[in-house]
Amino acid sequence: MTIAAGALHALARRSNDMSAHPPARVGAAIDEIDTPALIVELDALERNLDRMANAVAPGIALRPHAKSHKCPPIALAQRARGAVGVCCQTVAEAEGFVHAGIDDVLVTNEVVGAPKLARLAAIARRAKIGVLADDVDNVSDLARAAERAGVVLRALVEVDVGAHRCGVAPGTPAVRIAQAIAQERALAFGGVHAYHGAAQHRRTPQERRDAIASATALARETRDAIQAAGIACPLVTGAGTGTWPLEHASGVYTELQPGSYVFMDADYTRNTPDGDDVRFEQSLFVLTTVMSTAAERHVIVDAGLKALAFDSGMPLVRGEGVSYERASDEHGTIAVEGAAKPRLGARVWLIPGHCDPTVNLYDWLVGMRGPRVECVWPVAARGALG
Amino acid sequence: MTIAAGALHALARRSNDMSAHPPARVGAAIDEIDTPALIVELDALERNLDRMANAVAPGIALRPHAKSHKCPPIALAQRARGAVGVCCQTVAEAEGFVHAGIDDVLVTNEVVGAPKLARLAAIARRAKIGVLADDVDNVSDLARAAERAGVVLRALVEVDVGAHRCGVAPGTPAVRIAQAIAQERALAFGGVHAYHGAAQHRRTPQERRDAIASATALARETRDAIQAAGIACPLVTGAGTGTWPLEHASGVYTELQPGSYVFMDADYTRNTPDGDDVRFEQSLFVLTTVMSTAAERHVIVDAGLKALAFDSGMPLVRGEGVSYERASDEHGTIAVEGAAKPRLGARVWLIPGHCDPTVNLYDWLVGMRGPRVECVWPVAARGALG
Repeated sequence: MTIAAGALHALARRSNDMSAHPPARVGAAIDEIDTPALIVELDALERNLDRMANAVAPGIALRPHAKSHKCPPIALAQRARGAVGVCCQTVAEAEGFVHAGIDDVLVTNEVVGAPKLARLAAIARRAKIGVLADDVDNVSDLARAAERAGVVLRALVEVDVGAHRCGVAPGTPAVRIAQAIAQERALAFGGVHAYHGAAQHRRTPQERRDAIASATALARETRDAIQAAGIACPLVTGAGTGTWPLEHASGVYTELQPGSYVFMDADYTRNTPDGDDVRFEQSLFVLTTVMSTAAERHVIVDAGLKALAFDSGMPLVRGEGVSYERASDEHGTIAVEGAAKPRLGARVWLIPGHCDPTVNLYDWLVGMRGPRVECVWPVAARGALG
Repeated sequence: MTIAAGALHALARRSNDMSAHPPARVGAAIDEIDTPALIVELDALERNLDRMANAVAPGIALRPHAKSHKCPPIALAQRARGAVGVCCQTVAEAEGFVHAGIDDVLVTNEVVGAPKLARLAAIARRAKIGVLADDVDNVSDLARAAERAGVVLRALVEVDVGAHRCGVAPGTPAVRIAQAIAQERALAFGGVHAYHGAAQHRRTPQERRDAIASATALARETRDAIQAAGIACPLVTGAGTGTWPLEHASGVYTELQPGSYVFMDADYTRNTPDGDDVRFEQSLFVLTTVMSTAAERHVIVDAGLKALAFDSGMPLVRGEGVSYERASDEHGTIAVEGAAKPRLGARVWLIPGHCDPTVNLYDWLVGMRGPRVECVWPVAARGALG
C-alpha cells in the first residue's frame, strides 16, 4: 500500500508556509517579538560594517562572504561601503543575491554536475560571476556550460594552503589548472583562491600569524609559477574574520573575503586578539522566552537544537550568573545557580556559538534600533544548500 | 548612517524563495536529483509505519510525534493506520498540521505569552487541541486565552519523570496543577504527560528498563494522587522510539508518542535492541555529490553543517571503506583510506546522526520508490520554531 497515493501531487506544495509570518512588525517593542527570534542590533552591525570598510587599504579589494548573513540588505550595505561584490558558497546562494541586485558574485567553491553548472552559467547573463576549480575535467565542464549559455565565466584555481579541504596542491598542480582555464575561450582566468579556513579559529595571534605566513608563501609561490608559465594572475583572494589583517598586510593577497565580522559569535570571541586588531562587536542574538520555571536550579527557554547551531559549543547568555547548560530539540536548559531565577515569560538573550549555521535556521532577521524593531529582513538564502 | 534605509520595506519580503524550487521532479532518477537532498525510501518508511501501527495493542493509543518528520503526508499516513492524532512541539508546528487537515493535535510543551496562547486557542476552533502545563499562573493564562477564543482547550499536567527539563515534580505538585486546570471552565483536564526523553538513548536494554520502571512508578503515583483528589485522569501519555515497548507494557501509560521510528538515525542505531523489540529500518538519507577529489586520502562532498545536524555525532556513510570525518559549513570530508576513491560527481548516501534537526534544515523531502522519485513532499513545518 502506498502512502496517500492520490493526494501526493496536491500536497507537493507548501501546505503552510511558516516563513510568511515574520516574528515581529516594524515598530514593535522587544516584548512583542515572537520567540525564538534571530535579532541583529543595527547600530552594532553598522559599526562593524564601517570598521571593516575603513580598515581596508587602497589597492586591496573587499569582497565579504555573504554565506554568513544570507541577507540581501546587508550585502547591499556592504556594496554601498565599497565592497567590490560578495562571495557565495553555493549556486543557490548566488542566485539569491543576483536576483536581489548584487552584480558581482564569486562562488568560492567548486560546482559539479550539469544542472548546477547550467544554473551558474545562467546567472552570468545578469551579473559578473566567478567560480573555483581544482580539476581539469571540471574546467572543461565549466567551459561547455558557459558556451551553451553564451557567457564568459571567471574561473580561479583553488589552492590548498592549509585547510585540507578542496583545492589542488600549490605550485605545478595549480599551474595545470590555470593552463586548462586559460585555454578555454568561455572562461577567463581569475587568479588564485587561497583561503585558510582552519586558521580562522586558532586561538593565539602567534598561531594565526604562523598559519597565514605559510599560506602566503604558498600563494606567492603559486602566483609566481602561474605567471612564469605565461598566464597573467590578476588576483590572489582569501582570508576570513579571524585572520584578515594578516592577509591584508601580506603583500600577496589582493582581495579579502571575511564574512562573520558583521555579526561575530561566541567562538570568535575565544580568539585572543592581536594588539592592533580591529575589534568587531557582537551584533547577532537569539531572543528566547523562559517557558518553564518548575525546577529549582534551572529554567527552560524555547531555543534548542532547531534554533541554534551547536557545532562550536553552547551559546553564551547575555547577562550574569546564568549559563546555557544543555540543549534538546526545542528546549534550552539555563542553569541559574547563584543567580536570581528568571520569571516565567522573561526574555533571555543568547549569543550563538557559531553564527553561519545559526542564521541558516531562520527565515527572518529582526533588526533592532535600541528598544524598537526597525526592520524585518528575509534571510533570502536560508536553506540555499545547492 | 542607516543601512539602505529607503530600501528596507521593499526588501521586507523574500527576494528569492529558494523553497519554491524542489531538488527533483517526480519520475527523476537518482542522478537527476540536485544535492544535497533529503531522501526518504518509501518502502522502508511504509514498513516502519505498518510495524508500529501493528505493534500497539487495543486499548493503547498511538499519537506519533510529528516534530520528527514535519511533513503532513506522513502524518496523514499515520492517521490512516490508526493513530489518534499527532503530537507537535510548538504552536507553529500545530498550526501547520491543523491547516493540513490533522484534526487532533497535542502540543507536548508549555505555551507561554499572550500572542502564542491566542494562536493556540485559534486553532482549537478547527481541531481538538491539547497542551501541557507546569505552572498555575500559566494555567490561568491558558484559560483566559481559551475563553477569549470561545473554545475549550485540553490541558495535561507535565510531570518530570527523569528528563529534568520542563514539568513539575510527581505527586502533590502535579495534583495542584491538575486542580487548577479542573477549576477552569475553558479547560478540560487531559491527564498526565510523563515523557522520559533522557531514557531514549540509553544504550543497553537494562538501562532503558530501569529508567522507564522509575518513570512508570512516578506516573502511576501521580495519576493515583490526582484521582484521590477527586479528578478523573483520562490519560497517561509519553514514550519515544527508544523506549515505547516498555511504556506499552507498563499497565500505566495509555498513549504512546514515538516519532523517530518513521526515519531512524545513526544515534538510534547505537542503542542495543532488546531481544523482542520491533526493529525499524533506516529510511532517511542525505544524498550528496563528490565535489572535489584533488586530495589523496579524502574526497569532499557538498553536505556540511548546513545540511546535517551534528549534535549526535557524525553521519554514517552507506557503503564500505569510507567514513564521514569532518564537517565545515558547506563541506563534508570523506576519508577514503583503504577504499577506492569515489570519482568527481559520484553520489554518496549519508545516514544522519540525528533525524529531527536534520529534517529541520530542508524545505523538501524527496520520496524514492526503488530508483525513481515518486513524490516530493514539502517539509511544511520546517523552521516552525515558535
